[in-house]
Amino acid sequence: MSTNRINDLFSQDLNVINLGLEGFADTLRSLGSRATQVEWKPPAGGNSELIALFDRLEAAEASGSVKRAEANAEAVRRVQAGKPTIVDIGIAQDVVPGMHKKLILHAGPPVKWEDMSGPMRGAVMGGLIYEGLASTPEEAEKLAASGEIEFDPCHHHSAVGPMAGIMTASMPVWIMENAEFGNRAYCTLNEGLGKVLRYGANSQEVIDRLKWMADELAPVLRAALKAHGPLDMKNLIAQVLQMGDEGHNRNRAGTSLFIREMAPYLVRLDESRDTIARVLEFLNSNDHFFLNLTMPAAKCTVDAAAGIEGSSFIYTMARNGTEFGIRISGLPDQWFTGPASVIDGLYLPGFTADDAARDIGDSVITETSGIGGFAMAAAPAIVKFVGGKPADAVNFTRQMYEITMSENSTYQIPAMDFRGTPTAIDVIKVVETGILPAINTGIAHKDPGVGMVGAGLVKPPEKCFQDAFRAYVEHYC
Amino acid sequence: MSTNRINDLFSQDLNVINLGLEGFADTLRSLGSRATQVEWKPPAGGNSELIALFDRLEAAEASGSVKRAEANAEAVRRVQAGKPTIVDIGIAQDVVPGMHKKLILHAGPPVKWEDMSGPMRGAVMGGLIYEGLASTPEEAEKLAASGEIEFDPCHHHSAVGPMAGIMTASMPVWIMENAEFGNRAYCTLNEGLGKVLRYGANSQEVIDRLKWMADELAPVLRAALKAHGPLDMKNLIAQVLQMGDEGHNRNRAGTSLFIREMAPYLVRLDESRDTIARVLEFLNSNDHFFLNLTMPAAKCTVDAAAGIEGSSFIYTMARNGTEFGIRISGLPDQWFTGPASVIDGLYLPGFTADDAARDIGDSVITETSGIGGFAMAAAPAIVKFVGGKPADAVNFTRQMYEITMSENSTYQIPAMDFRGTPTAIDVIKVVETGILPAINTGIAHKDPGVGMVGAGLVKPPEKCFQDAFRAYVEHYC
Repeated sequence: MSTNRINDLFSQDLNVINLGLEGFADTLRSLGSRATQVEWKPPAGGNSELIALFDRLEAAEASGSVKRAEANAEAVRRVQAGKPTIVDIGIAQDVVPGMHKKLILHAGPPVKWEDMSGPMRGAVMGGLIYEGLASTPEEAEKLAASGEIEFDPCHHHSAVGPMAGIMTASMPVWIMENAEFGNRAYCTLNEGLGKVLRYGANSQEVIDRLKWMADELAPVLRAALKAHGPLDMKNLIAQVLQMGDEGHNRNRAGTSLFIREMAPYLVRLDESRDTIARVLEFLNSNDHFFLNLTMPAAKCTVDAAAGIEGSSFIYTMARNGTEFGIRISGLPDQWFTGPASVIDGLYLPGFTADDAARDIGDSVITETSGIGGFAMAAAPAIVKFVGGKPADAVNFTRQMYEITMSENSTYQIPAMDFRGTPTAIDVIKVVETGILPAINTGIAHKDPGVGMVGAGLVKPPEKCFQDAFRAYVEHYC
Repeated sequence: MSTNRINDLFSQDLNVINLGLEGFADTLRSLGSRATQVEWKPPAGGNSELIALFDRLEAAEASGSVKRAEANAEAVRRVQAGKPTIVDIGIAQDVVPGMHKKLILHAGPPVKWEDMSGPMRGAVMGGLIYEGLASTPEEAEKLAASGEIEFDPCHHHSAVGPMAGIMTASMPVWIMENAEFGNRAYCTLNEGLGKVLRYGANSQEVIDRLKWMADELAPVLRAALKAHGPLDMKNLIAQVLQMGDEGHNRNRAGTSLFIREMAPYLVRLDESRDTIARVLEFLNSNDHFFLNLTMPAAKCTVDAAAGIEGSSFIYTMARNGTEFGIRISGLPDQWFTGPASVIDGLYLPGFTADDAARDIGDSVITETSGIGGFAMAAAPAIVKFVGGKPADAVNFTRQMYEITMSENSTYQIPAMDFRGTPTAIDVIKVVETGILPAINTGIAHKDPGVGMVGAGLVKPPEKCFQDAFRAYVEHYC
């Protein structure tokens, strides 16, 4: 650079692009200069072991020994083509593969009774009481620890469950079918907020509500659905994203659209008016009712893209309150886990962060499919429930484009010029960028038997993504 | 400026703030310089007559002979305090002040039969057939022209009507009460989109639907509302702004919330299941149903701020398809009008701008109260219905803060950090800035008897605001 050009530089206003430490940009800004901060980090945080694995992956891709791009394109094609459709309601032991009386399904990756978090224990106890296998929480606790009860993740049975995610044999479940590929997913019906089984509560009030849901709510909804015919969830989810929902912790629009669609069919059923009115009142009182529909909709959508040779698509994310786990399409049966995270949240009156359990639930299947936290830009009002500012909601969505492989062709965000939601997470991109999936979630009390204490935002542990990446490279490269 | 400083200037990048003609800024930008365009216009567009009136106003305010600031603060206080509440459904001739068999109420400022636009004529003919005063459109047209029928604006009878806004004696109407001030407003029930009376259609299908609405829909909804008790519209409107509605041309959330709230009460009525199901099906098929609730809610809210001595608050905006008219609080009985505008819109298949009637309807009462076009930033998906880009929707709302006196304390826009909607238009600000209220609207066919052809965006004529300003200064200064 000639002296002249250097002088030019110093005689002009500074226009700086700063990479790395933001402090430099802040200082320049405080001195009145313009500085653009680029959030640049070295790939994989500069971790030399991971960088070596990236080199190995690159070489394998160059040699054609692994066809990751093609495999991921196929995963994306299947996710985009999925057509989640509500087809029926059934009883778990009749319809969920492998379900039986002594089996309890739970959220997240596998976990033993002795390692379960408080809310999951509380919900297991409630589930055993609900099934008539125990009559008090104490009895239930003994039985659960006796080895007589089998525990398995919902995800091993084509199912998903919010929070503790407890599903027992006689619970009614939604049957969701991916009309494009024929695979099904199952989920219990949503109980509402507060003292509910999925948040670990198990008092008589909780059991009574579950009994009513099985005896009255589910059969009535089933009959109405039969009269209505299969209900297109893809269309409903597309609509609710234009109505301020994101399908995970904001489901007011979805619940409303479900009610208005079903109401005429409910009225025409051969049931007493009181029964029908009670069903409608329950639905109207529970804005999260739609969550237990978006979850199996998401599950059957992403499951169709599991098991694609060479694909690094994350088709499962789930938490059991102890661990956060993921599974990738190309290694479909293997869980990669890390410790469940602490949630940054807003608390119900009377509760604080000291009461909070760690991150729990299969509801992160919504984010896995491209809605929920990934679509928060469509639902700015959600920050009143989970905390943060509307601008954060937009930033979460924007950032998720960095770790996903496509923009959803059906689920769009009006405020972002109808851009498709960031869809189909690539574990390679997560490890490369260090950007973790944005998740919003309810918060359960850490002790069994209490229930909900708040809602918030959470980032999963980086470890499980790195482990999955390592395993992918070891297997394919 | 020393030569040295001039040289400094020319050796630096240009950073220009451009006032006035945007062409200068465009040129600079095309040459690679930064230019910020400030949309500055001389007050009142530099019109010397108007500037003289501003001087006169300023002098009067300085001398204390007119207390505009205090008067407008009182208008704002009343608008913010309004509590629109659905209290009942009645028959127009029983409840609407001054209503009788030979009186037809219409949208907008006063207009004679011979000056009415096509869709208003079509709707008047339909109204006469509906009342049994004519049996064919031809007979109805003769009767309307005979002088035997009286015409009067809805707004002269505490009422509002969308599009043609035709209200006849035996039509059922919503009774909306401002629970804070006790005043009431009335509006017919919404018929749906397409071939409907308010868009000027009057075929047998249209009349039959109106009869069914009077014979079945209205009595059933009335009974359900009675069982439910008064329904808080202020709360509902606040919620729908968090669900992608703006309360004028997007009412999907509002209609949904209304249905879910009323459904249990409908079910428990002593009516046949078929009747209740038909009512629910009709509501579910008509996303604009909530419009005829936001309109009287807006009307009873702003009416409480009419007639405040010295206030320049615009408490009425309305169009009859021929003229756009406004009324201001301090001169409450005087209409100021200008020619109804051409609409920039999207058309239904088979129709073009050549088919379009001019701007029509009282639904602009929503904008007058701080929702509708003023809240479009809350409803970006509306652009699929009325045209434009989501960014336009945000810009409309932002600009409306320039001509309003307050931010709504209840109606908030989540995406704008829960900022209150721009509320309470000051005619002085409109004339001073030249910024006209942003309105979205349906588009009727220009000929009687056809119906809806599209929806779009429209700006009112500047003339009526300038006339109101002149009259204000003449009267008060």
